Amino acid sequence: MSGVPEEEVVAKFLDASSRGDQAQVTSLLSAVPSLLERTGPRGWTALMLAARSGHAGVVQTLLRHGSDKSRVNSSGQSASDVAAFWGHEHVSAFLGDRDGAGVENYFGSEPLDRLSAKRSDAAWLEAKKKDPASVFLLFSDLSPMLHRDQQGVQHLCRLGYEAVKDLLEKPEPVLVFLGVEKRRRSATATENPSEELPAWFAISSNEDEAALLGRCPYGEQKCSFASTPHRDLLHLTHEDAGVLAPARALLAWHQRYAFCSTCGSATVSEEGGHKRSCRKQQCPSNKGVHNTCYPRTDPVVIMLVVHPDGNQCLLGRKSVFPAGMFSCLAGFIEPGETLEAAARREVCEESGVLVGAVRYVSCQPWPMPSQLMIGCLCIAVATDIVVDRSEIEEARWFPRQQVMEALLGAGSRPGPVQSGLVLPPKQTIAHQLLRHWISTAANL
Amino acid sequence: MSGVPEEEVVAKFLDASSRGDQAQVTSLLSAVPSLLERTGPRGWTALMLAARSGHAGVVQTLLRHGSDKSRVNSSGQSASDVAAFWGHEHVSAFLGDRDGAGVENYFGSEPLDRLSAKRSDAAWLEAKKKDPASVFLLFSDLSPMLHRDQQGVQHLCRLGYEAVKDLLEKPEPVLVFLGVEKRRRSATATENPSEELPAWFAISSNEDEAALLGRCPYGEQKCSFASTPHRDLLHLTHEDAGVLAPARALLAWHQRYAFCSTCGSATVSEEGGHKRSCRKQQCPSNKGVHNTCYPRTDPVVIMLVVHPDGNQCLLGRKSVFPAGMFSCLAGFIEPGETLEAAARREVCEESGVLVGAVRYVSCQPWPMPSQLMIGCLCIAVATDIVVDRSEIEEARWFPRQQVMEALLGAGSRPGPVQSGLVLPPKQTIAHQLLRHWISTAANL
Ligand SMILES: [Zn+2]
Ligand SMILES: [Zn+2]
Repeated sequence: MSGVPEEEVVAKFLDASSRGDQAQVTSLLSAVPSLLERTGPRGWTALMLAARSGHAGVVQTLLRHGSDKSRVNSSGQSASDVAAFWGHEHVSAFLGDRDGAGVENYFGSEPLDRLSAKRSDAAWLEAKKKDPASVFLLFSDLSPMLHRDQQGVQHLCRLGYEAVKDLLEKPEPVLVFLGVEKRRRSATATENPSEELPAWFAISSNEDEAALLGRCPYGEQKCSFASTPHRDLLHLTHEDAGVLAPARALLAWHQRYAFCSTCGSATVSEEGGHKRSCRKQQCPSNKGVHNTCYPRTDPVVIMLVVHPDGNQCLLGRKSVFPAGMFSCLAGFIEPGETLEAAARREVCEESGVLVGAVRYVSCQPWPMPSQLMIGCLCIAVATDIVVDRSEIEEARWFPRQQVMEALLGAGSRPGPVQSGLVLPPKQTIAHQLLRHWISTAANL
Repeated sequence: MSGVPEEEVVAKFLDASSRGDQAQVTSLLSAVPSLLERTGPRGWTALMLAARSGHAGVVQTLLRHGSDKSRVNSSGQSASDVAAFWGHEHVSAFLGDRDGAGVENYFGSEPLDRLSAKRSDAAWLEAKKKDPASVFLLFSDLSPMLHRDQQGVQHLCRLGYEAVKDLLEKPEPVLVFLGVEKRRRSATATENPSEELPAWFAISSNEDEAALLGRCPYGEQKCSFASTPHRDLLHLTHEDAGVLAPARALLAWHQRYAFCSTCGSATVSEEGGHKRSCRKQQCPSNKGVHNTCYPRTDPVVIMLVVHPDGNQCLLGRKSVFPAGMFSCLAGFIEPGETLEAAARREVCEESGVLVGAVRYVSCQPWPMPSQLMIGCLCIAVATDIVVDRSEIEEARWFPRQQVMEALLGAGSRPGPVQSGLVLPPKQTIAHQLLRHWISTAANL
């Protein structure tokens, strides 16, 4: 490289990283190793440029050569931030500080394409129901039929048309069309890409559970219905949890909303189980579009409140919690309320602590029966605790170190650790908010 | 200052800014004007330090001396970012790039303390109803009684107990307790600070509108009931809009949810109008806590989709829109769905565009009848448009410059501008998302 002006080599190297030219990146690096941490305009490194364009190969090459992934540009963004911003999740995953599980909350996976346009296509739905490729999930009183594999992981039992045919033939079966399996789509093929892929349905039956278990293709010994949803439904794969969430929420809605709330008449399931219409024709709910006819989702705000010193967080416990367990405060968002206002109100009502800034972190569907948990990080502006005993038993400021230790102890199941503090399991957004706080070393 | 080592003066100046010592900041600045832009560890300026601690006086002094508010620290945070993070909204307001209106969406103000603990205190509510200091808002078929002041601004008519006494004495009046006026609280006084402040109620009547108008203390000539809610309710003050949002959403719920959805029996209003219980005692909804008994809020995701080139955004129009008007795409969040997944699904369904990253920006309650609009910025990863005609009439990529010009044209009322593009009015979160995008010059 002697003879070539230094700036020119740097520019060439950064450009190759941007373009994803792995061969040139490798050859330049072996000639001039110090290129690795050189920056272009506004403090962008090769790693950031490759991350921005989603060039996973170049990113891996740079990391293998020891590129510093914690480094930030002049806007304070790391390569991981840049990749996340541009939607390159495969790249941000191995650039992040977290492990593979990371960003996606349990119940938040979306393995099916909901194909909502097909819900009103009765002929298509009818054909899909009888399609031997279609998959049926069988529920008894909102509990899905599960089977455990040899590794002890729970799976939703996938039944075929023949196994549920008689249930489908009953008058008004409680049946929900969940969607079709996703095709890996290229960026250009956007038209009806999923037409022939297997459709999934959820069906609920009030037949005897033992008889229902006999329908399972995996053999009834291995199968069971979850008995305690809040516990038993937390050990599925992320994909199955993502299918279960809408299925259970919709079946719970059918169970609770069989009557028209506007006039009290019976309702009937329509649009693949995504609508219930009043049987009384002159009911106001049949004129125009009304939310009474559609599934209900209740938005809940759940918040990790951080002390103004940045080194403690506020957790509360309800009397029904296991011994030693504390969690994030939470509450329903009320009509006419923003999520930020709801966060401030709930924290003040339950603990007396006053919150200033509220920042959205991530959300989690919670299908018991149908909440959307909206997770936020809050900064307290007044820290005195006055607990409302009707809501929670105790609230306390916990130091960062103690939370860190308890997080290490909180695996997939809660269990006491040395510090005495027990946190909710990793399948909960409360756990993920705590992890988020611990892993964010904010310069603020 | 001669003789004193320079670093020592800088440290003293930064420390005085941190502590809010306005006298020392002023005296040091007059002696050494160049101190203004000096930085301490991690690139923090005096302005950032004062902003962090919420010292409005020092911040104003520094700005008066010409401190650069656009400057960022080594984490890329401006003084405004820092103030916002720490919840010093009075400081972030005059540090921000936006005008006074800024961050808070219309309908999102929270001028009352909801005091939810008092909803179940029947004796307290009964006393408050008869309290001459209490304020009643009167609705006819979900339209509030309004009066226009001399400046043409709409206000909610505030009626006293005497004006609505007879309506309250009717059997089962549709009455909602909204909360009490907020006291300016100090950081330490957190216990029952609002006990004696005026309580607010919303009451709905199906009496003749002309007769109802006669009850208004402002004189009936000035008063009216809003006839077109989507238009007429957008010209209140921010405070009144913040009171109207929960009031209208709750009254709409009473109108639509008079019957138990679980068994079809009639329900009765309880807890100050925040609960409806089934009259049939053995109904499952009366065993345990069920969402069927509580007001419904429907979460909606609304998104501004930005082109990967960063200089265009995706807007759509429905056939019912006024000529030339385009807005953000939006849709209901479904059961078992995250808001990020809902954003991707809705954009793909309506326009064929594929979205990668989704970032929460702000939210807005929308009481027609009771949505929570969750506003996001999305980055497209595939930009070909294929419109679903059953949802929208047209979708198009608009260049930043055209949006900027249309925003300048979109005042409080929509009206065409030179570019031909008409945007929704500033009271909508769609407008605010567009403003947010235009005002964010992201280094990404
Ligand atoms: Zn009806
Ligand atoms: Zn009932």
